[in-house]
Amino acid sequence: MTTRSQKRSARGRRAAAQARSQSGVAQLPWRQVENPYPPVEPISHDEVEAIHESSLRILEEIGIKVLSPRARGILASSGADVNDSTEIVKFDRGLVAEQMNLAPSELAMRARNPERNLRIGGRNVVFCSVGGPAFVTDIKRGRRQGTYAEQCDYIRLIHCLNIIHQEGGGAFEALDLPQDSRHLDLYYGLITLTDKNWTPWCLGRERSRDALAMLAIALGETIEELADKPPLFSCIINTNSPLQIDVPMAEGLIEMARHGQCITVTPFTLAGAMAPITLAGALAQQNAEALAAIVLAQCVRPGVPVAYGAFTTNTDMRTGAPAFGTPEYVLGAQISGQLARLHRLPFRSSVVTTAHAVDAQAAYESQMALWGAINGHANIIKHAAGWVGGGLTASFEKIIIDAEMLQMIAAYLEPPEVSDATLALEAIRDVGPGGHFFGTAHTLERYETAFYQPLVSDWDNYENWMERGANSVTERAHDVGLELLQEYQQPPIDAAVDEALKDYVDRRKRDIH
Amino acid sequence: MTTRSQKRSARGRRAAAQARSQSGVAQLPWRQVENPYPPVEPISHDEVEAIHESSLRILEEIGIKVLSPRARGILASSGADVNDSTEIVKFDRGLVAEQMNLAPSELAMRARNPERNLRIGGRNVVFCSVGGPAFVTDIKRGRRQGTYAEQCDYIRLIHCLNIIHQEGGGAFEALDLPQDSRHLDLYYGLITLTDKNWTPWCLGRERSRDALAMLAIALGETIEELADKPPLFSCIINTNSPLQIDVPMAEGLIEMARHGQCITVTPFTLAGAMAPITLAGALAQQNAEALAAIVLAQCVRPGVPVAYGAFTTNTDMRTGAPAFGTPEYVLGAQISGQLARLHRLPFRSSVVTTAHAVDAQAAYESQMALWGAINGHANIIKHAAGWVGGGLTASFEKIIIDAEMLQMIAAYLEPPEVSDATLALEAIRDVGPGGHFFGTAHTLERYETAFYQPLVSDWDNYENWMERGANSVTERAHDVGLELLQEYQQPPIDAAVDEALKDYVDRRKRDIH
Repeated sequence: MTTRSQKRSARGRRAAAQARSQSGVAQLPWRQVENPYPPVEPISHDEVEAIHESSLRILEEIGIKVLSPRARGILASSGADVNDSTEIVKFDRGLVAEQMNLAPSELAMRARNPERNLRIGGRNVVFCSVGGPAFVTDIKRGRRQGTYAEQCDYIRLIHCLNIIHQEGGGAFEALDLPQDSRHLDLYYGLITLTDKNWTPWCLGRERSRDALAMLAIALGETIEELADKPPLFSCIINTNSPLQIDVPMAEGLIEMARHGQCITVTPFTLAGAMAPITLAGALAQQNAEALAAIVLAQCVRPGVPVAYGAFTTNTDMRTGAPAFGTPEYVLGAQISGQLARLHRLPFRSSVVTTAHAVDAQAAYESQMALWGAINGHANIIKHAAGWVGGGLTASFEKIIIDAEMLQMIAAYLEPPEVSDATLALEAIRDVGPGGHFFGTAHTLERYETAFYQPLVSDWDNYENWMERGANSVTERAHDVGLELLQEYQQPPIDAAVDEALKDYVDRRKRDIH
Repeated sequence: MTTRSQKRSARGRRAAAQARSQSGVAQLPWRQVENPYPPVEPISHDEVEAIHESSLRILEEIGIKVLSPRARGILASSGADVNDSTEIVKFDRGLVAEQMNLAPSELAMRARNPERNLRIGGRNVVFCSVGGPAFVTDIKRGRRQGTYAEQCDYIRLIHCLNIIHQEGGGAFEALDLPQDSRHLDLYYGLITLTDKNWTPWCLGRERSRDALAMLAIALGETIEELADKPPLFSCIINTNSPLQIDVPMAEGLIEMARHGQCITVTPFTLAGAMAPITLAGALAQQNAEALAAIVLAQCVRPGVPVAYGAFTTNTDMRTGAPAFGTPEYVLGAQISGQLARLHRLPFRSSVVTTAHAVDAQAAYESQMALWGAINGHANIIKHAAGWVGGGLTASFEKIIIDAEMLQMIAAYLEPPEVSDATLALEAIRDVGPGGHFFGTAHTLERYETAFYQPLVSDWDNYENWMERGANSVTERAHDVGLELLQEYQQPPIDAAVDEALKDYVDRRKRDIH
């Protein structure tokens, strides 16, 4: 735990580094963020226990349909009640408690560059870029299917933006590449274009194994050695709600857990569609599904790190589509934080919006979700940069605007120093009633580093803003993105390693096609 | 204090009323909002005490310049150390403590329509529309000087939007009317076009007295009777930072306090310009200025209601202009909440942005400020609907978008029910693994009222959104505003009262011109 005085000096260092950045896009330096404030807890401890109790009854009485025979086998041999003809697995509460207790409450995560290593759990907050969309958009060309070249540009932006701690899984699909092998090109891009921690696709054994194999090559380790060291991956495992774990997810989970990777279980419990319409019921189901997958991970490898993921939101009952960044979403996130703390597990939440344009709606829904995550004490905040349109699209402007929002939150999470120097009684005395602080020594000593400086927000007056074209922040974000891509410098990688990665990709492509 | 079960039934009623609203713009029904969650406190209790202690030293050792001889006279006769040649008033800490103790921690406020009466303090939250801008803007005509006709339209919108509890002071100036008497036209509009609680201009004795006189006419009371009943006005008193109270503000304060109105003291302590560049110092100065004005109010009328207002933010050090919705602003708001609770006073904060356009920046800065206010447990949230451009402009679209944000916060402040019915174990059992909740009885019984429904957010899919013109939320907000103005119905007022108000305005205009 960082002490308050360390935090204060972090504020000073941050601001100093920001001010020093004379050329190019000014932004906060790389550093991991901590949340020093207590969580907001919308329901009582008894109510949290009631949700958990209902989940245990779901697991005991109804069970989870586990479509993978291998997963059922693992669960059966660990004492779960497995029916192979119905594929239903029931979990006794003793088994659940025993397995849950094996998971660590905090963990370290490695990146290719050790300076990008992360801490998960406790007060730590990791901001992650968007993962999963099918489409990409920008204001010049609109929404479209993405290409590998654009995917690489998106990775370059993620590398450039210091406030993004973790890449989220390719941002969008490179639809100009064959479906069966495009994950290999993605992984190659993720290893060579950034040195940050990144997120693999865990759909099935092969895609998981390729990620492990390629990062092992990059680190000069064998795939077997990975399990003995801190994990490289926070693997997104979505249950197939309601109450189902499908084959690709189970196979991905098993492969990753076997190799000691962090299993981040995130049921997509859409209240009113794949989960009960009542938030309490949707959260009980979320909790049951999460516990089932966490137990499976522990049965694969006792003590493997896991994170408790939440993605409960409400359906737009007129259309059946999910709505994001809603009041129900925020409550779901904060109550999920309460559940994660009940389980003593790191908590994963997300920044989400239904808006298709990068407009005020995109910003206020994303902010609602972001405060849900921050007040809910999320440790991993997925989709925190780039998500629009209900998660179907990654935006080249939204990632910049989200980075601004994340930087602002990071600065907010540093409480101000209260000391004789900052209380400034003598400066107030010197200036006196009706005076001005601009030219005082107290101001001059501090003005370069005192305040957060924006990445893309315009703080200028109306006349100057008009004269520069009265651009919206979305238009400015487009330009900042282009500027960052011009500034981008590829992180160094050993030529032999690069060659070995290329060989691996080529060999695997030959196997697949 | 409302119990949790009352809150739950409020959620049901709210949703039901929302669903019933078949015609016109769907919105939440009128009701006051409560904040059931504990505040976020960025600094320790000792640090709050250190800020307060520094404020007391400012008041004892440096003092406040009070430009009004009448105010100095009142303070002198109450025991303050007054120097009439320097105009400096020093406040002994005993005097401060004694006077502060007289102020109530909670109060009721009246409106012309008793159904619009408000509660201030405790868990209560009052959302207030923007007050103070010089300009008005909309996306069709751009920024311009406002007219009385447009000011009246803005009041009509405030009347229509149920989530706005309190009008904020005319929103913008009617520059087609003479400066000396336009407050009379404004008050007439505020009394006749809405029946909500509204905010007068407290610059000087005359404008204050006119507000009191006109509302007394509207209520059928004498101006002398007002002081014996709950206040009608939350009067915005800005100190002239640093450490100065000017004549118009002091005169307005005295007039309003004499008549028992709530004095909401809000120093504009701009860190780096009119206050120390360090947040702790700016807050110590804010606190000193607020206490001085609160003591003055108590000296005028012991026990008069007051609110502790905060408006500390940081300067853009490149331009000297204030920045809004920044990390420093949020910290300032939440720490000011801590100070207000130390004083056991209602807390006033604001929703603010520097953005000139109603774009993503306007939304994320406003959201930052809004969460600063909500997490900081603000009781009165000024400028919560309509503010853009650093407070120089009121926007016809931003008021709609802010109303959406406020509705979302109001829904978030209702924690979900956790009960057997909402845990939905039987519904989960009936649906089973891989099923769907859409057609179940549990869903059908609740789907009309289960979730928050948006005012202007678009939750539709990309294709439908494109087909409707791919409008931004700001374009939709423009249309919602026009629709509300068409739906608007003037609240009833007695014809004789209306006549008396017109007579008052005519008589006063003759006096003035």
